[in-house]
Amino acid sequence: MTPRRTPTGAAVLQPEVTRAITEAVLDELAEAGYGRLSMEAVAKRAGVGKSALYRRWPSKEEMIAAVVADFSVHRAPSPDTGTLRGDVLASLQAVYEWITHPRFSRILPDLISEAGRNAEIADFARVAIGGPRRDLARVAFTRAIERGELPADANLEMAMDLIAGPIYWRLIVRRAEVAEGYLEEVTDLVLRALGAAERG
Amino acid sequence: MTPRRTPTGAAVLQPEVTRAITEAVLDELAEAGYGRLSMEAVAKRAGVGKSALYRRWPSKEEMIAAVVADFSVHRAPSPDTGTLRGDVLASLQAVYEWITHPRFSRILPDLISEAGRNAEIADFARVAIGGPRRDLARVAFTRAIERGELPADANLEMAMDLIAGPIYWRLIVRRAEVAEGYLEEVTDLVLRALGAAERG
Repeated sequence: MTPRRTPTGAAVLQPEVTRAITEAVLDELAEAGYGRLSMEAVAKRAGVGKSALYRRWPSKEEMIAAVVADFSVHRAPSPDTGTLRGDVLASLQAVYEWITHPRFSRILPDLISEAGRNAEIADFARVAIGGPRRDLARVAFTRAIERGELPADANLEMAMDLIAGPIYWRLIVRRAEVAEGYLEEVTDLVLRALGAAERG
Repeated sequence: MTPRRTPTGAAVLQPEVTRAITEAVLDELAEAGYGRLSMEAVAKRAGVGKSALYRRWPSKEEMIAAVVADFSVHRAPSPDTGTLRGDVLASLQAVYEWITHPRFSRILPDLISEAGRNAEIADFARVAIGGPRRDLARVAFTRAIERGELPADANLEMAMDLIAGPIYWRLIVRRAEVAEGYLEEVTDLVLRALGAAERG
């Protein structure tokens, strides 16, 4: 396949090709990992030429960053159930689905490991994934303060770590089983930890 | 260097050589990672022949498992300060030192990532690292129940996830800064989450 040359800035990017490449990037990241992913393998899997990749992203690193950020931020919880309990449970469910997603459950630990060796990946993850996800979570906690369900000085940074930390540790680090009702148990625990007001 | 042959089962293993190899394994794991670690590189770094490695461990996998388990279990918290608060804070400090250790802060995320692709590594980590560490932590929480500081039906599985999960998320996944007093804040949060009795 020989893609036609289009003038820079005037390229028409077909959405279905972008979707196929995005899926191929996620598949390759899950199977091969960040370190071993190649543009050739992504192009082959997507059934396109390498130029189709470079027309969209200037480098492998930027391609991965864009795909992973898009995947992660689209799955960020922004619940508005009317109660803190409902919002915490919905947030935990969204985090659960994000970290246990068949492909992403391999991609995320791999990126975290790479970030320990590569400051650019660490910066990208903070700016493009962690930041936007936390901004959305903060909104729900701020509403709970406004409703009087949380103390005005509740430690929201800690609250957000509590939404993700214990379940990441249980499911990804320990790879342990969870029983029915596990997310409800974590919800109770988070509410108690934050000093949430009891609601009748 | 050509090591002398010693009859199987009768090898005298010099402790200082074992120590040098152990350090070399940790250095190589931190730098190269699990996937790229080679027996040659470990032997060279330790200043020994490869046979010195194989006299101690039958394979690369078992060598890494033994070294990492030893490193991790020796750093497992087993505090007995007399109060739940003291024990939780001491446990958090021990986990903090374990996961932020200059070499281990790279080794642990790498192993977690590999465990997602390799069931043998996942099993080893559960049996040789997680299990013994949790057994030690359980002792401290059980004492707190006996002292009446925790309800008899306190969820100890969750309690142990709370000792590690939020700080792993903050420091390793997010690579975020923590302020002075952070571990005390986490301690307060864990005690509230577990419904610990207030002590005067």
